[in-house]
Amino acid sequence: MDPLEKLISCLCRLPGLGRRSAERVAVRLARDQGSILNDLVSALNDVKARIRCCSLCGNVTTVDADPCRLCSNPGRESSLLCVVEEPDDIVRIERSGGFRGRYHALMGKISPMKGRGPDDVRIKALLERIDKERFAEVILALSTDVEGDTTAGFIVEMLKGKNVKISRLALGLPSGSGIAYSDPVTLAKAIERRTVDR
Amino acid sequence: MDPLEKLISCLCRLPGLGRRSAERVAVRLARDQGSILNDLVSALNDVKARIRCCSLCGNVTTVDADPCRLCSNPGRESSLLCVVEEPDDIVRIERSGGFRGRYHALMGKISPMKGRGPDDVRIKALLERIDKERFAEVILALSTDVEGDTTAGFIVEMLKGKNVKISRLALGLPSGSGIAYSDPVTLAKAIERRTVDR
Repeated sequence: MDPLEKLISCLCRLPGLGRRSAERVAVRLARDQGSILNDLVSALNDVKARIRCCSLCGNVTTVDADPCRLCSNPGRESSLLCVVEEPDDIVRIERSGGFRGRYHALMGKISPMKGRGPDDVRIKALLERIDKERFAEVILALSTDVEGDTTAGFIVEMLKGKNVKISRLALGLPSGSGIAYSDPVTLAKAIERRTVDR
Repeated sequence: MDPLEKLISCLCRLPGLGRRSAERVAVRLARDQGSILNDLVSALNDVKARIRCCSLCGNVTTVDADPCRLCSNPGRESSLLCVVEEPDDIVRIERSGGFRGRYHALMGKISPMKGRGPDDVRIKALLERIDKERFAEVILALSTDVEGDTTAGFIVEMLKGKNVKISRLALGLPSGSGIAYSDPVTLAKAIERRTVDR
């Protein structure tokens, strides 16, 4: 295969890159050979050599820090577990400052349409952790789409009979947005779950 | 620097990738070490070894094909030259099927705001080609923004006195769009340059 075509199809497998943006990136890399192409190859090799996923929560960490700094930090609330889909969800939640407990990344979500079942995500490891680490509450911070709901429903089912509180993220209007930009489902939820000022 | 942070800032330098999408890509690469990371490194190394820019038009080509297949194809109209900003513009114009002449990629556009002058793009090489290859018409297929207009204006100025026709791409409504999605400048141009049916 043509090297450029090979690079384009490789870039297409990355999240958020469609065919057209992959083409644009590939051609830029090809034309700026000297600098950015070399930097990228070196950065990728560094990640390959030094970055791993935490064996506990799945977050990205360095080879010499497993469990990661979030899992091994004694200052964090150890009774709360936040279940997310991907490691970068952890980065986003950390940036929000809204959570100070433990994490568990599933590395995906259940998707019958794409042939991904419960065994293709880290649900077994989640159940083992819940048994062992005795969390008081498990927060399911999953996507609010069909696949996220399916995954959440499956986890709720598996946790039946266990003495643990289960919660999900609130649905509502995003901050800085308005009714004009809202879809009907979100809007109905935002009204139903309205908060009372006084 | 942290290897992941290094990869993110490297990805941020690619066109179309902001900080958030770069983070998402980097974390995905870090978590899927085995497969996609290796494939990407190998694809990048192949591009580095085998892909070059055509010394004539600037299009991406393989090391063993310089001038590229567009420059060396005798079946193409050799009296028409299409001037574009980037090599991937050539790919897009080729896909449109609307042009069968020669190309010249400037590798950017003049941007006083970003400190890029005429010497930072391939205008000198363009003028040399125009003198040597004796095109009948030069089509300036540049962006319809301030920088594109500045670049086009500069080229028109440099070609004064030379016996060559200069044209630009038509401004108007995009296909499959409508007035509702059009900005005032485009709309005014589309009315001014309206085409007559009969």
